Amino acid sequence: MTKVHNFSAGPGILPQEVLKQASEACINFDNMNLSLLEISHRSKNYVKVMDEARQLVKDLFEVGDEYDVFYLGGGASLQFGMVPMNLLTETGYAAYVNTGVWASKAIKEAKIVGNTKVIASSEDKKFNYIPKGYEIPADADYFHITSNNTIYGTQMKQFPKSPVPMVCDMSSDLFSRRVNAKDFALIYAGAQKNMGPAGSTMVMIRKDMLGKSGRKMLSMLDYQVHVKGESMYNTPPVFPVYVSMLTLRWLKEHGGVAWIEKINQQKADLLYAEIDRNTCFTGTVVQEDRSNMNVCFLPTKPEYEAEFDKMAKANNIDGIKGHRDVGGYRASIYNAMPIESVQVLVDVMKEFESKFA
Amino acid sequence: MTKVHNFSAGPGILPQEVLKQASEACINFDNMNLSLLEISHRSKNYVKVMDEARQLVKDLFEVGDEYDVFYLGGGASLQFGMVPMNLLTETGYAAYVNTGVWASKAIKEAKIVGNTKVIASSEDKKFNYIPKGYEIPADADYFHITSNNTIYGTQMKQFPKSPVPMVCDMSSDLFSRRVNAKDFALIYAGAQKNMGPAGSTMVMIRKDMLGKSGRKMLSMLDYQVHVKGESMYNTPPVFPVYVSMLTLRWLKEHGGVAWIEKINQQKADLLYAEIDRNTCFTGTVVQEDRSNMNVCFLPTKPEYEAEFDKMAKANNIDGIKGHRDVGGYRASIYNAMPIESVQVLVDVMKEFESKFA
Repeated sequence: MTKVHNFSAGPGILPQEVLKQASEACINFDNMNLSLLEISHRSKNYVKVMDEARQLVKDLFEVGDEYDVFYLGGGASLQFGMVPMNLLTETGYAAYVNTGVWASKAIKEAKIVGNTKVIASSEDKKFNYIPKGYEIPADADYFHITSNNTIYGTQMKQFPKSPVPMVCDMSSDLFSRRVNAKDFALIYAGAQKNMGPAGSTMVMIRKDMLGKSGRKMLSMLDYQVHVKGESMYNTPPVFPVYVSMLTLRWLKEHGGVAWIEKINQQKADLLYAEIDRNTCFTGTVVQEDRSNMNVCFLPTKPEYEAEFDKMAKANNIDGIKGHRDVGGYRASIYNAMPIESVQVLVDVMKEFESKFA
Repeated sequence: MTKVHNFSAGPGILPQEVLKQASEACINFDNMNLSLLEISHRSKNYVKVMDEARQLVKDLFEVGDEYDVFYLGGGASLQFGMVPMNLLTETGYAAYVNTGVWASKAIKEAKIVGNTKVIASSEDKKFNYIPKGYEIPADADYFHITSNNTIYGTQMKQFPKSPVPMVCDMSSDLFSRRVNAKDFALIYAGAQKNMGPAGSTMVMIRKDMLGKSGRKMLSMLDYQVHVKGESMYNTPPVFPVYVSMLTLRWLKEHGGVAWIEKINQQKADLLYAEIDRNTCFTGTVVQEDRSNMNVCFLPTKPEYEAEFDKMAKANNIDGIKGHRDVGGYRASIYNAMPIESVQVLVDVMKEFESKFA
């Protein structure tokens, strides 16, 4: 099988050994002589998987039982609504930072639920930087941020100190670097970047945040229901959670977040150095806010694009087309992306310059 | 690998050839040299899957473009809430039939949203029959039924003629028999019985039902949003939808619903005949309402249970323990269950009688 270098922004690359185990589980899971796709989620073999998937999140975040973890369907998009339903009171308001399309969607849903203030935004420069120096109001019900902006390639390198509960959408840089998880009241992430396949979303909530909004809501929207149900109030997305568990286990066994953080920094340094050196390409993001997950760059001349596309394809580089809002290229270099693939991309960029500059 | 006879109530048995294809797609999907678990849902290879998964539902239901089909996360449990959010007006009311735990949960969520009347119930006899002879009010916003009750083993053999839009939870007997789909305004089903693995839910809605409630709601709860997004408003449960597509394709290629209906009838007849003949077992459901999907039966003496459990296990019969609300046994004989496995169960029941009666 030809090796393809998978720079897809998401669903994104997963470790090869995880894919192999996932494939095997479709035929024979846990030596049951049954497929994981056709067994009860209440079987002891699967309950073990769910328990491990929940515990691994706490282990990797280095938090204890003051937090609860569960997995839901519906993607981060459903969390955009569940967060305000559960945390935003009828009389209070929520504070948001707008750092791109996904943050904007989170704000839109919060506004459907209740009072919402955008206290900082980088919309003025097409989201090519992370706002700083704003004040977080001490009377907000909560403060919401997006740690990494997949489309624009920006990343919060430091998190603000918040006087109110801080909520973070970590969908596109979860477990890619060390964070002080205890600074957050709630962290959520669609699995399909660093954690697993599409179809499940991880929610980690500090238990004192449960029942805060006092709102009447559908059971499936209520965090308390999912905590009480131990992530199995109803049939969970069995296979997506299993693959997430395998990926988190892979991460922990290899050395955890501290281990991957170093590798991710090396990969990002390698690629950004080439973008800055190469006369045919230019970065799109303010230097200090550059994402270590999604690396966005433009050709310095529009006519380069067709030729570079061809050269990338010839070298089995896949998924680097930039989002239509930014154009050019976006190389997503998630946890499972080996540095060798980044080197291939860098080599192709060099080769391109020597031929076309 | 030892053949296990998988009578699990759900997630339930899937066709062997589907499991094989699912396993392969985890390594190399559609000859892309990439796993299905790590490619963009916007890639042309996957858009094709989603389109086919949506079209197959319309083909198997024999409906045209007056209906739209989409796949969501969150299970049927989320639909319990989405149905009233989208169809129940602020001033109107919804009519429900209560045929068991899942119908009760649907009613509970509808009551959270608005006015809800239970117009018939079989709770008086622990849900061992399907209510009949009730009148469906002509001024309700919609009328909701559950076609098959997994826990109790009851099934609506005929659907009432409804003067108002009829909504049906078909989670546990979808595509197991011919139905006149055009009699329904909305059909939904958690995938994890006859359609695919856990993690996706199929919704088919008649387009004139869209925007009926006039309620303000979260985007992810709004059927109009998912119709407009062609089942990809946000990242869908990629792998679960793929496996559902494979299963529906398997069904269509083998002869569709008419084909499986015959086989399902043979399997049910075989097993119910044995239950009625065998002095060691007795059925739990009124004869005329017996489900062709979930066959519930009790041992005629409590002391039989331990011995029969042992004998079933020795014959690789898995997943026949009854739900705690009913006790005894429940053999789920979904579409993918071969008649040979039902025969094995029948043979074990015969053997048991000859030894212990």
